[in-house]
Amino acid sequence: MIYLDNAATTKPDEECLKLAEKYLQSQYFNPSALYKGGYSLQVELRESRKNILSLIADEENFELIFTSCGTEADNTAIFGGGRRGNVITTEGEHSAVHSAVVELKQRGIEVRFAKLNPDGSVNVQHLLSLIDDKTSLVSVIHVNNETGAVNDVVSIAKAVKAKNKFTLFHSDGVQAFGKIPFKLTKDIDMYSVSAHKIGGIKGCGALIKRKSLIIKPLIYGGGQEKGLRSGTENVFGIKNFEYASLKRYKDIKDNYSKVQKLQELLWNGLDKDIFTRISAENCSPYILCVGVEGLRGETILHEADDKGLIIGTGSACASNDKKRYSRTILACGVSESLADGILRLSLSPSNTEEEMIKSAQILNEITANRKAIMA
Amino acid sequence: MIYLDNAATTKPDEECLKLAEKYLQSQYFNPSALYKGGYSLQVELRESRKNILSLIADEENFELIFTSCGTEADNTAIFGGGRRGNVITTEGEHSAVHSAVVELKQRGIEVRFAKLNPDGSVNVQHLLSLIDDKTSLVSVIHVNNETGAVNDVVSIAKAVKAKNKFTLFHSDGVQAFGKIPFKLTKDIDMYSVSAHKIGGIKGCGALIKRKSLIIKPLIYGGGQEKGLRSGTENVFGIKNFEYASLKRYKDIKDNYSKVQKLQELLWNGLDKDIFTRISAENCSPYILCVGVEGLRGETILHEADDKGLIIGTGSACASNDKKRYSRTILACGVSESLADGILRLSLSPSNTEEEMIKSAQILNEITANRKAIMA
Repeated sequence: MIYLDNAATTKPDEECLKLAEKYLQSQYFNPSALYKGGYSLQVELRESRKNILSLIADEENFELIFTSCGTEADNTAIFGGGRRGNVITTEGEHSAVHSAVVELKQRGIEVRFAKLNPDGSVNVQHLLSLIDDKTSLVSVIHVNNETGAVNDVVSIAKAVKAKNKFTLFHSDGVQAFGKIPFKLTKDIDMYSVSAHKIGGIKGCGALIKRKSLIIKPLIYGGGQEKGLRSGTENVFGIKNFEYASLKRYKDIKDNYSKVQKLQELLWNGLDKDIFTRISAENCSPYILCVGVEGLRGETILHEADDKGLIIGTGSACASNDKKRYSRTILACGVSESLADGILRLSLSPSNTEEEMIKSAQILNEITANRKAIMA
Repeated sequence: MIYLDNAATTKPDEECLKLAEKYLQSQYFNPSALYKGGYSLQVELRESRKNILSLIADEENFELIFTSCGTEADNTAIFGGGRRGNVITTEGEHSAVHSAVVELKQRGIEVRFAKLNPDGSVNVQHLLSLIDDKTSLVSVIHVNNETGAVNDVVSIAKAVKAKNKFTLFHSDGVQAFGKIPFKLTKDIDMYSVSAHKIGGIKGCGALIKRKSLIIKPLIYGGGQEKGLRSGTENVFGIKNFEYASLKRYKDIKDNYSKVQKLQELLWNGLDKDIFTRISAENCSPYILCVGVEGLRGETILHEADDKGLIIGTGSACASNDKKRYSRTILACGVSESLADGILRLSLSPSNTEEEMIKSAQILNEITANRKAIMA
């Protein structure tokens, strides 16, 4: 099996699972408990927060709140930050942000959407033009989950603050964390990350926020995570997330180069008469989005699956809304006939060059055969 | 080590961990993905929902929404159900409900608290007297997490509906699920459960709801769990939860009798000149709450910990709010001097008779020595 749907979820890293095993077997206490076993887990969670945070932000100005997933982190940011006036986001957000702002609209907050460039990155000029003195929050995805377009959130956040210094800036960093070398700057108020996209397990994410920023929680209860996220901490998931993050960051630059080379090999192997590239040249190497005119992506996906190649057709999370075309892909200006044939090939550092060559061959063969039948 | 803090969290069941392992190792796909590996997980999750639900409700009228924990399930019920008029709950709720209704109050909903009986059960007459035609939601904990008092939620829900048929009824069943033989009736609209209190792992819970009841989600995004709880499903946690639930329910009656006998042994072993029983005779056998006049519970807890006995002083989740006395214990009418010396001894079917005898000895010794020093 060749697995090229790493943007949907990754195989949990075996070494990190092994390291975290003891939190299921012997260190299973409730971290809020007062005895030694509980308290030591409280200390261990503090370590995890610090260790993950230090990978992408300075600990003096930022703090990390563990959540149950990237979606919950995004929701905490959107509902916590977008409490008045208007909220601005892009037409290329993951549904975790998109559906949350649609709900904000229901609650009487005006929502404005910034247009996309053809590669899926946000049109920054349009975004900035939407900001006014009533803008409470701007949310821009760091790496687009469908096209891999990288938004320069550092400079966008800076420009947002220049237009309105009271506007909060959030970025969904789920497809960037552990992949794109990057540090949070003072203009970024909130940043969402997830464990299962980088070799961690499902059920664990985090919202990184500016320490001085006060937001309301999404989930109330026992006051865990400084009151910002109640509920017994998922110790196994969190420690595993810590190990997976440290492992990915240790080699983040080498991984980047390796995956960049893999993506090139994959793209070079695809038949240019059949495949149209949607991803920009400078996209995240972890995501390659291509389109096939006149064929359905889902059909190709199923045939590839039968041949042992696992790919996506866009955001896995979008499969629940039963819409034929991807909201983001259409916002890139792609025609409906091409939007029908979108494939997302998403990589991990554990993929190999041989897999890229083989995958391109399989995809060329499937599409050429289908085109021939239709001709 | 003798572990008597099972109401805070249980040791994950080894057999259930083993069974679920494959969802970390080979079946790691995103359940929303369209290829066979993803779809088969979607089917497996459907099985889990059905299997857990069938243990406590009829599948024709109820459905199950997986959440990241009991707290999230409670919050979904409270914020989803308490949207207008007034909301009624008890003075003996877990902080997951208590803090959520305090937040509801902030949002302009009137909140009314029903008084407790001395054992921690709700004063039903007082609860019913609070209901009027504007009551949108009543939430009553099934088994009190501190005293083990069992509220007869079936008859309470019926009486609530008799006073106002439009009022929704929710119960936090976290300390009852898998322990107290019980089935949901038509008068119970929502019921919260958690995995890590019955041998499952942390990071997984569920809200069981009447199918015909429409509530708003707490977390928006990719539309998982029929749109009621977005975010990539925690497949490992959910399958593990399913296995743990099935295992507990298979022996629920035998476990009940066994734990009842253990509780009796434990209580019988405690020196009645020192320990005052807070739990009623007919409390959940899984929780025994006692008080020691003139000593601090936390002091006893630490000394017991040093002697290899792990106990609680009340809700672990309440340790974050830094209050000296438990809100619930005071609401039982317990004096502050006794409330200072509260111990919660919570059992599991894997505890043994020897452990009960030994635990009582340890607690008698610690408290007698301390009392002697103070005398």
